[in-house]
Amino acid sequence: MVSEKCLAKGSAAPGPVPKDKIRIYSMRFCPFAQRARLVLAAKGIDHETVNIHLKEKPEWYLAKNPFGLVPTLETPAGEIIYESPITCDYLDEVYAGKKLLPSSPYGKAQQKMMLEHFSKVVPLFYRIPMGRRNGDDVSGLEAELKEKFGKLNEDLVKKKSKFFGGDSITMIDYMMWPWFERLAALRLEHCMDGTPELKKWTELMWEDPAVKACMHGTDAYKVFMESYAAGKPDFDYGL
Amino acid sequence: MVSEKCLAKGSAAPGPVPKDKIRIYSMRFCPFAQRARLVLAAKGIDHETVNIHLKEKPEWYLAKNPFGLVPTLETPAGEIIYESPITCDYLDEVYAGKKLLPSSPYGKAQQKMMLEHFSKVVPLFYRIPMGRRNGDDVSGLEAELKEKFGKLNEDLVKKKSKFFGGDSITMIDYMMWPWFERLAALRLEHCMDGTPELKKWTELMWEDPAVKACMHGTDAYKVFMESYAAGKPDFDYGL
Repeated sequence: MVSEKCLAKGSAAPGPVPKDKIRIYSMRFCPFAQRARLVLAAKGIDHETVNIHLKEKPEWYLAKNPFGLVPTLETPAGEIIYESPITCDYLDEVYAGKKLLPSSPYGKAQQKMMLEHFSKVVPLFYRIPMGRRNGDDVSGLEAELKEKFGKLNEDLVKKKSKFFGGDSITMIDYMMWPWFERLAALRLEHCMDGTPELKKWTELMWEDPAVKACMHGTDAYKVFMESYAAGKPDFDYGL
Repeated sequence: MVSEKCLAKGSAAPGPVPKDKIRIYSMRFCPFAQRARLVLAAKGIDHETVNIHLKEKPEWYLAKNPFGLVPTLETPAGEIIYESPITCDYLDEVYAGKKLLPSSPYGKAQQKMMLEHFSKVVPLFYRIPMGRRNGDDVSGLEAELKEKFGKLNEDLVKKKSKFFGGDSITMIDYMMWPWFERLAALRLEHCMDGTPELKKWTELMWEDPAVKACMHGTDAYKVFMESYAAGKPDFDYGL
């Protein structure tokens, strides 16, 4: 851990990445960055973390990743990798330890298609709380989320498996997990009422050592989300 | 080629895919489907094509690909693969012949990041012509496209390479090409005036055998786009 407190505009750029390590640029409460953090934890990859102030981004960070988002990886050779699915695939391919992606091309394609479907679910986790805050009627959006959860439930039922890629955790589980970890903080748990298999999946996920190592807890998420909604995200909350 | 004319709602579903072949569900003028067609051609993969009426989609097609988009691949075992980058990666991994993706994890990550950047360019190819049709001032959007082309040009200059992945064609070139093939039909060629390296790239791409095998020509694109804008896409134009 080079710097747990986030680095903002005007900060000095961190030096080169130490040999035999990889660096992740992250933000402690970002679900996309959490995907890469889960893979780092699951595979036991020796890494250091630099947290980024996403409201006032360091100039040097934008030079590394023009999108200015997290996660970004940096290697000792100065190679830069960004976009969460790309970082996760890279880590899985380069590092030994448990392989999270299937080795068969069709198995990989299936995980990528599931991710594509899930990427249509992600916006609902933001639109519903934002709608509530604006006093909008969000029942339509909630019905949409329930329908999506229904499809995920059906998928588990059809596959007769505990996880989305079989009976052990694979990449797709970690790619979807960060939003489920925030369900209580987002007040969206009731959307899982009619989806018992999906609920079982979340219960199993909570027990995973990588999940446990990367989580902050509902109370912390709530505080962060409140600060974010108020326009003053408290990136260092709890430090 | 099972059916060159497109199949619409109410059509009978095609039978199983013959052994030793792969089937692509396509639409002759779709740039996303063209990505997979380019990979099929570049690698010399024995395949059959089923074209889909994208305005009145067959029920059986939606059962195969719930997004209802093209391309979709189907194998003799009944495996289904959709989303253009996923289909292209699958084809490259499964089939012998020229490898289009680099073998190194970082090389792959670089191609995926370039694709991510290009995915921010794609909407401009639609928004500018649509804006013109509506009589809007599109000079701002054209400036945006020129800036994006400038970045692509800079990338080639920095790399000192003819193509985006080195001195021969790789996956990323095929992923970007379909929209450049349509530049004249879209009346966007002038946006490449200040980008000589990018222009040279297009000239080299026009010479590629796979590109030649998959193209329809500017006049055909114009007719198709006009029919599309008029709400009556002529999917079978020229047959």
